[in-house]
Amino acid sequence: MATYKAPLRDMKFVYRELFDGDALTSLPGYADFSADVVDAVLEEAAKISQEVLFPLNRSGDEEGRHFENGVVRTPKGFKEAYDQFTAGGWTGLGADPEFGGQGAPKALNMLVEEMICSANMAFGMYPGLTHGAYNALKLYGTDEQKQTYLPKFTDGTWSGTMCLTEPQCGTDLGLVRTKAEPQADGSYNLTGTKIFISAGEHDLTQNIVHLVLARMPDAPPGIKGISLFICPKFLPKPDGSPGARNGASCGAIEQKMGIKASATCVINFDGAKGWLVGEKNKGMRAMFAMMNTARLGVGVQGLGLSEVSYQGGLLYARERLQGRSLKGTVSPEKPADSLIVHPDVRKNLLTMKALTEGMRALVMWVSTSQDKAEKSATEAERTEHDDLIQFLTPVVKAFGTDIGFDNANLGVQIFGGHGYIREHGMEQFVRDARITQIYEGTNGIQALDLVGRKMTAHYGRYMRAFFHPVQAFIEQNAADPAMEEIVTELAKGFGRLQQAVGQIAQKGMSNPNEAGAGASDLLKLLSYVSVGFMWARMAKLALGKQNDDPTGFYKGKIKTAKFYMHKLMPITGALLSSIMAGGETIMDMEDELFDAGLAA
Amino acid sequence: MATYKAPLRDMKFVYRELFDGDALTSLPGYADFSADVVDAVLEEAAKISQEVLFPLNRSGDEEGRHFENGVVRTPKGFKEAYDQFTAGGWTGLGADPEFGGQGAPKALNMLVEEMICSANMAFGMYPGLTHGAYNALKLYGTDEQKQTYLPKFTDGTWSGTMCLTEPQCGTDLGLVRTKAEPQADGSYNLTGTKIFISAGEHDLTQNIVHLVLARMPDAPPGIKGISLFICPKFLPKPDGSPGARNGASCGAIEQKMGIKASATCVINFDGAKGWLVGEKNKGMRAMFAMMNTARLGVGVQGLGLSEVSYQGGLLYARERLQGRSLKGTVSPEKPADSLIVHPDVRKNLLTMKALTEGMRALVMWVSTSQDKAEKSATEAERTEHDDLIQFLTPVVKAFGTDIGFDNANLGVQIFGGHGYIREHGMEQFVRDARITQIYEGTNGIQALDLVGRKMTAHYGRYMRAFFHPVQAFIEQNAADPAMEEIVTELAKGFGRLQQAVGQIAQKGMSNPNEAGAGASDLLKLLSYVSVGFMWARMAKLALGKQNDDPTGFYKGKIKTAKFYMHKLMPITGALLSSIMAGGETIMDMEDELFDAGLAA
Repeated sequence: MATYKAPLRDMKFVYRELFDGDALTSLPGYADFSADVVDAVLEEAAKISQEVLFPLNRSGDEEGRHFENGVVRTPKGFKEAYDQFTAGGWTGLGADPEFGGQGAPKALNMLVEEMICSANMAFGMYPGLTHGAYNALKLYGTDEQKQTYLPKFTDGTWSGTMCLTEPQCGTDLGLVRTKAEPQADGSYNLTGTKIFISAGEHDLTQNIVHLVLARMPDAPPGIKGISLFICPKFLPKPDGSPGARNGASCGAIEQKMGIKASATCVINFDGAKGWLVGEKNKGMRAMFAMMNTARLGVGVQGLGLSEVSYQGGLLYARERLQGRSLKGTVSPEKPADSLIVHPDVRKNLLTMKALTEGMRALVMWVSTSQDKAEKSATEAERTEHDDLIQFLTPVVKAFGTDIGFDNANLGVQIFGGHGYIREHGMEQFVRDARITQIYEGTNGIQALDLVGRKMTAHYGRYMRAFFHPVQAFIEQNAADPAMEEIVTELAKGFGRLQQAVGQIAQKGMSNPNEAGAGASDLLKLLSYVSVGFMWARMAKLALGKQNDDPTGFYKGKIKTAKFYMHKLMPITGALLSSIMAGGETIMDMEDELFDAGLAA
Repeated sequence: MATYKAPLRDMKFVYRELFDGDALTSLPGYADFSADVVDAVLEEAAKISQEVLFPLNRSGDEEGRHFENGVVRTPKGFKEAYDQFTAGGWTGLGADPEFGGQGAPKALNMLVEEMICSANMAFGMYPGLTHGAYNALKLYGTDEQKQTYLPKFTDGTWSGTMCLTEPQCGTDLGLVRTKAEPQADGSYNLTGTKIFISAGEHDLTQNIVHLVLARMPDAPPGIKGISLFICPKFLPKPDGSPGARNGASCGAIEQKMGIKASATCVINFDGAKGWLVGEKNKGMRAMFAMMNTARLGVGVQGLGLSEVSYQGGLLYARERLQGRSLKGTVSPEKPADSLIVHPDVRKNLLTMKALTEGMRALVMWVSTSQDKAEKSATEAERTEHDDLIQFLTPVVKAFGTDIGFDNANLGVQIFGGHGYIREHGMEQFVRDARITQIYEGTNGIQALDLVGRKMTAHYGRYMRAFFHPVQAFIEQNAADPAMEEIVTELAKGFGRLQQAVGQIAQKGMSNPNEAGAGASDLLKLLSYVSVGFMWARMAKLALGKQNDDPTGFYKGKIKTAKFYMHKLMPITGALLSSIMAGGETIMDMEDELFDAGLAA
């Protein structure tokens, strides 16, 4: 049976020991987040995740959300859980104190997000989408908009959505057709159909606030003619409470592979009243403000599912008795040995552990950088941290979700036939994880973001924010005998990454299809090196602490680092070979030959 | 929307041109299967698959099978489709003429199986399981058992099951507890509970015949005490018709991730009457006779899902307009270019094409070998063909199902968010494919079968049946300039395979955990080389034929072969590195350290 316990020891390790999260208290607004407060937040988050959200995960999947006459009802227990969630202040953990929030560091917030996603990803979608709306309004909203909406988002009484996709456009938002007609009172009438709107309609909050991409009558074609609007389900009254029903309604909900407790809605805007957010025709900029944070959040969904799948697989591998160790019986008193004695099962478990904990460290690197990028004293510091975030966002989104899906599958595999049965809860993680590789920009789009934007911006400045610390670490530790085994493999991977970047930069200059053809391989190569860098840093830290540690935690870190380097890092060689082979064999095939085998 | 058209051109290519299937007519019993008969069979199979089975695939998934008071009802349309299926003679295509079958070559049968699995895998489970029962009885049954059951299996009025798994034992059949008590009349009373019994109960046939592993009272412990029994739902009357209800009944059905139209049953044996099949305590031998064929069949399920996922992805990539080509607009008259212009989408499509067609060729190699192993004139010939089958069975099972699952996922990915929505039919292939990596021996077990049995048997004789033709092909074509690019990459992969086999054989001798730790990597390495060998052979053939071919079919083959060599074969380098790193980092971790991160 699936099981979940928040990995608090590991979370504190990456937050505190690896990235000195307690030092964030020196940044403006974070003074309260001392070690004991951080611990208390983590422990309380663990409690609500384990005790309230996780028990609703299977039942929510089985029951799904309901739809009748435009009304969406969440599964049994969700409303009560959401009320506990808001009462505990969890919707406002990361929100600004000026709007009633607790103003916690983003890094701490990310750990809490991970727990929620492990425990019940579908539930997490409801408060989760609100974060994007909060960020967009905070950055681009007027003071009045902020005062009207942000306190409600913070206390969780209202929720937000992001209305981007339409039937004819997903990735290519330049094709958006929803119209925004200016009205005499300064508002706009929105008309059009949006699809795939997560939490677009539900029964958890008093109001639902849509952030909508639409086009004004005089807008230029393509993405340069897109503006962002705010359009609440109920129009706020002067006292701030929900008033008249607006013309935005749920026309249907989707039947999906997973996250069945989450309502994915068709939202029809029939002359709904909305207001411009930010500048006219600059909607894409505001959208990217939401999107970049959202992409990190989606990576963390993958991480959360990876962790919970690992825990289920590990428990089963210990309890299920099947076969005997290849080296001879381990438990003669039992009818068979535990699955965990078998090398292939151990390999799957170590793969899950190495990728999950490595990704958690990477998320901490990026999210402590977010805090520093926002609050550091000098612009130079802020820029440096932001550069790293820019560069690693596609890694966190794509690799976080790829390992979420892959590890969910390894969890099922360890369970064997029992993993395929719904009641054990393991196959749900696979179905839930599958969407994370798609939404907020497919992982293929993340790869294009890497080679097309992140690598080239400011003459490679983002890239240097990553390359420099890796290079420096390798140089500083090359002579340490205890680190040799690890640094050697990291350096191999890093060398391959440098060569691959050079190849793609050079060939892509004369032929952009060459950059496109190598993009996914490069993103994967960068991902393995990034997570490898995390493991090298964790091993370094653990080597200094392992002797005083009766729990074996640090010893386990060192062993996992070695596993990663010897068993997972080699993929970087294959990725480099594929990249060096270029894109010719991809672009060369005539379109009509793809199905020449179908003729009679 | 998902779509399916049988890939007849490619099927005829692998059957006829690549493996000279028409020459099978020279083998005893196959004289009738001339080219025109083979073509007619394929075309009729395409028709029933496309027109009858495929249209029931989505509805069957949505409705699922029903269970009430021990009775299983298949989804709407299944009974009518099954009646058409039996009326068309499809249940007897591969069965022996002496029992009313058409005695078609196994290779032809495999192509038909592939179509059924593409069109409706869940439907295919019902007649599919009967094949295993047929084979076991044909090999080990008494004349009376054969006369009673095989004609009914052949005309499809009765179906068969394989009852192996119990709650406490899946992989480890030595733990079987079901009891068989000898009766005075020579029969046995079977008592116990079997789980995960596909087609264990349903409404398609007049009788359901269980082949059951059970233990006699005096049986030695473990797998040496397992016998095989036949136990029909209705006891056959002297005239052969179904008589009294036997004590084998369906206690429950499983709620599964996929193949929802297929009934996966708990079968309770409450003193049910059964008869021994084959020798007492030699049940495992008979079970393996069923199992080996079944493993190839499961690989073909993966292949079928891979093909149908490819077709859906390709259609969508052509029709969906999104974004512009990186090299500049391709279709200025349209609001956006087709997805297929984008390098990453093309890469996904080519990956699907290369793996699907390569696996189809490999299946043809193995299944034409099955025909020759059974019917060749001399024992030496029969043995040589059987050796190849033995060696490649784990490849077909594990790699066939891995590509089935991976390509189903690529199909979803090309569809983006629409792939995640049930109505488009793409996500069903992912859910259906997932079980194939698990049942009939998980893919991890296939890897152990490779290193523990197939590599070592008869001092490596099975292995040589594969290594020799690959080596010979490389030598014969090394000097051909047109083949150089392809042979070079194949030789690289083959060299890595040889090195890896040497490493595992040597290290595994002193420490079996070393063999276990490298097994999955080795199976994957062997798989990529096997499919690479198929591509090299297909390219060679196509090079000689491309000039007279207005359709471009052969040109497409050559281009796909090059894609495979440059973009997919490099993984063999990473697999070799991982194997050479040994199993120490896998076995070295203390069990209790796997979750040291969970402490508070």
